[in-house]
Amino acid sequence: MHAATPASTTAHWSELRGRANRTSSLTAPLTDELRALLGERLVTSRQVREHHGTDISSYPATPPDAVVFPETAAEVVAIVRACAHHGVPMIPYGVGTSVEGHVLASEGGVCLDLSRMNRVLEINADDLDVRVEPGVTRKQLNAHVRDQGLFFPIDPGADATLGGMASTRASGTNAVRYGTMRENVLGATVVLADGRMIRTGGRARKSAAGYDLTRLFVGAEGTLGILVELTLRLHPVPEGISAAVCAFPTVAAAVESVIEAIQCGIPVARVELLDALTVGAVNRYSKLTLAEAPTLWYEFHGTVSGVEEQAKAMQAIARSHGGRDFAWSTLPEERTKLWQARHDAYFACLQLRKGSRMIATDVCVPISKLARCIEETRADIARASMPIPLFGHVGDGNFHLMILVDPGSDADLDEAWALNARLVRRALAMGGTCTGEHGIGLGKREFLVEEFGAETVEVMRSLKATLDPRNLMNPGKVL
Amino acid sequence: MHAATPASTTAHWSELRGRANRTSSLTAPLTDELRALLGERLVTSRQVREHHGTDISSYPATPPDAVVFPETAAEVVAIVRACAHHGVPMIPYGVGTSVEGHVLASEGGVCLDLSRMNRVLEINADDLDVRVEPGVTRKQLNAHVRDQGLFFPIDPGADATLGGMASTRASGTNAVRYGTMRENVLGATVVLADGRMIRTGGRARKSAAGYDLTRLFVGAEGTLGILVELTLRLHPVPEGISAAVCAFPTVAAAVESVIEAIQCGIPVARVELLDALTVGAVNRYSKLTLAEAPTLWYEFHGTVSGVEEQAKAMQAIARSHGGRDFAWSTLPEERTKLWQARHDAYFACLQLRKGSRMIATDVCVPISKLARCIEETRADIARASMPIPLFGHVGDGNFHLMILVDPGSDADLDEAWALNARLVRRALAMGGTCTGEHGIGLGKREFLVEEFGAETVEVMRSLKATLDPRNLMNPGKVL
Repeated sequence: MHAATPASTTAHWSELRGRANRTSSLTAPLTDELRALLGERLVTSRQVREHHGTDISSYPATPPDAVVFPETAAEVVAIVRACAHHGVPMIPYGVGTSVEGHVLASEGGVCLDLSRMNRVLEINADDLDVRVEPGVTRKQLNAHVRDQGLFFPIDPGADATLGGMASTRASGTNAVRYGTMRENVLGATVVLADGRMIRTGGRARKSAAGYDLTRLFVGAEGTLGILVELTLRLHPVPEGISAAVCAFPTVAAAVESVIEAIQCGIPVARVELLDALTVGAVNRYSKLTLAEAPTLWYEFHGTVSGVEEQAKAMQAIARSHGGRDFAWSTLPEERTKLWQARHDAYFACLQLRKGSRMIATDVCVPISKLARCIEETRADIARASMPIPLFGHVGDGNFHLMILVDPGSDADLDEAWALNARLVRRALAMGGTCTGEHGIGLGKREFLVEEFGAETVEVMRSLKATLDPRNLMNPGKVL
Repeated sequence: MHAATPASTTAHWSELRGRANRTSSLTAPLTDELRALLGERLVTSRQVREHHGTDISSYPATPPDAVVFPETAAEVVAIVRACAHHGVPMIPYGVGTSVEGHVLASEGGVCLDLSRMNRVLEINADDLDVRVEPGVTRKQLNAHVRDQGLFFPIDPGADATLGGMASTRASGTNAVRYGTMRENVLGATVVLADGRMIRTGGRARKSAAGYDLTRLFVGAEGTLGILVELTLRLHPVPEGISAAVCAFPTVAAAVESVIEAIQCGIPVARVELLDALTVGAVNRYSKLTLAEAPTLWYEFHGTVSGVEEQAKAMQAIARSHGGRDFAWSTLPEERTKLWQARHDAYFACLQLRKGSRMIATDVCVPISKLARCIEETRADIARASMPIPLFGHVGDGNFHLMILVDPGSDADLDEAWALNARLVRRALAMGGTCTGEHGIGLGKREFLVEEFGAETVEVMRSLKATLDPRNLMNPGKVL
């Protein structure tokens, strides 16, 4: 199943750095068309372009030739038609919190910044669904629906846009209980490469009508079309919520306790692992005083008595694996502080090495393999030359290394790449996936082939060629 | 959005009846190839062909030209290559419990009966997943995993094959809690129209790797390829299970109570509505003595105390809508009897009209619209000339009419078709879907266009043309 050795990260980097010298795709006729359409909302300043050619990975900035700020789906259609007419690539952009280079203009082109399309269009509280524009962020949506007793559970940490989250099939801390974007997008409106706009699903909770186009566009990373509207599932805010942290003697013990809890069917809403290095970084960054040991962070949702019951069962399992006493956060503001600290782990860990950027790994394995996968990975990173905190959504079998590299050092990049490649192959050999939630982007295209085999990827290519025959929609990503 | 008036059912019928006289696609060279490959497992007897050209709808038998019984994926590949070489249509077949004509050989060809591919290949109890061949039925799977404390929740009533259930995106009574086949298929192995065999997903609980081909084949009704292996999610058998029935003064009151329960987030595992006519039929067929009134059948899953709590909350809501006392089935054999009676509602209702066949409707609407949709539908069927029991999975917003027609009467067929068309349009106007779980098959192709619009269906067509350019995989279905 293994393809030829993937190109090294250094090669990716050099390629991207080389992009800086290419000719702009923004010809005068296209500029005129976009200017007529958008006026000042066509921007070509270096600063804005660089900002839009950067995500939170360690890839060098790879700016698009122009950035446009559409405000309606009709404007997106017009922009797509203009770019298609001139054969210019299009890259959808939310807030740039991707970690796999999704928004980098690796083949030049026009970036569509969708952040002004941020209206919540329709809340159907009785049906637990909502229709939004793609630039609405998850925190904005939650603020909007909170007073109706509802929430949107998918929480990748960053305050990403829902369009971006749908495009990368995001998940995050609540996925073990509520699923991922795959399960929580009911339908979408998509602008295709030729400017056609289609609707892929309605508001019914289930449907057996035709091909599941919604799921085809969710996770397509903008390579098949641009999402201009989403219908999402909402959930009632549970009557009871409690959060706790529990330190363990070893990472293995913590992971074993999670495996047992999942196998028992305890419907935990969140269960996050942070290794001692991560806890230390989080303590310093978020001014917490947690014991610097491998730690699980839990959240339980349900009725008041159901939450108590879940927590009791979880405590018993934790204790049998050497877990210490649970430290509880029952007040909403304590919980918010705790999860904010978890979400800030990215920034906290960056402080472990001055001037570093991160290469994030993202494997997900069947839960029974998780302890072994983490153990072997820890043995591997023990030999690394840089700090590498480990944390993750262990209830799903998904964990991350945050490899802190000096982005100017080819040796660092190569070491990180080799480590990531070994990790991905370890996970694939265990029946896992190269990416649980970050997506393929630029960084994992070779691994996609290793994971599925060349023929499956060839089928993906044929679907891409059908919907985007000239390869204009976020080219160079996924495939 | 409304297309031209769909062809009447009578037209469908005449078309299918006309198929009886067409020339067989089974040429001598193809016969020789298949015979060399399969020996006696190539069958052309009239009886076997007629059996395989019939489902449980009221469509006339539309036999394939031959039936083959592969026993391995490699044999499916060889059969597909042979049929493709000779340009002959292929129709995958499980046990023939489809209700939309999916298995009818409306364009002739070879039926692949996959029932001999019925091995459970690998159970990963610790990971709550299982790998099966497509001919394994849901009851077979449940018998196989029961002693490991696991179950597969998707339950469409009939003891369908898992391949067939995946192909029609089946759901049934447990979907309100456990989702549909969409949420419970982790990955598949598929033989494409040209004989390529691809794997679409692994065992990780979530993945952001590439296009979601699994979801593309789930629900494709065999028109994009033939499923030869499935990886499915399993669930731990809950510690506590209880079932109850509750009679209501009116259908509207029963439905209103369900809407309230869903909006409160009560995680009921099953909640089924049977109208008085259905309850009467079920009483007679399954020798029960339920009050012949609109009735809800519930099942609760969870911890013992969680189930009690759910049931108590549900009872309070039911009572506030005029529901009578709950009649409980706590013993497993009582529950089995109850749900078997629910599943036999199809046979029970057929007894309401001697010699009848059924046309089943299958709309699904947002839950807030369910009461109005059912109410308007009941007003409509009150004027019908035939008995029309109503029941359904109301927790999902999905309900069925079972229109009992004399299959020889064009007047009956036309009346039923018109009724179904009015119902579908009512549901679509409410943001619903023309099919919650039965699929499009032959009967709902026009409605697919009404539901999504011509351009969306054109995109589906282009995907079909990419994967099956000569239209050999179950042609005439879905599109």
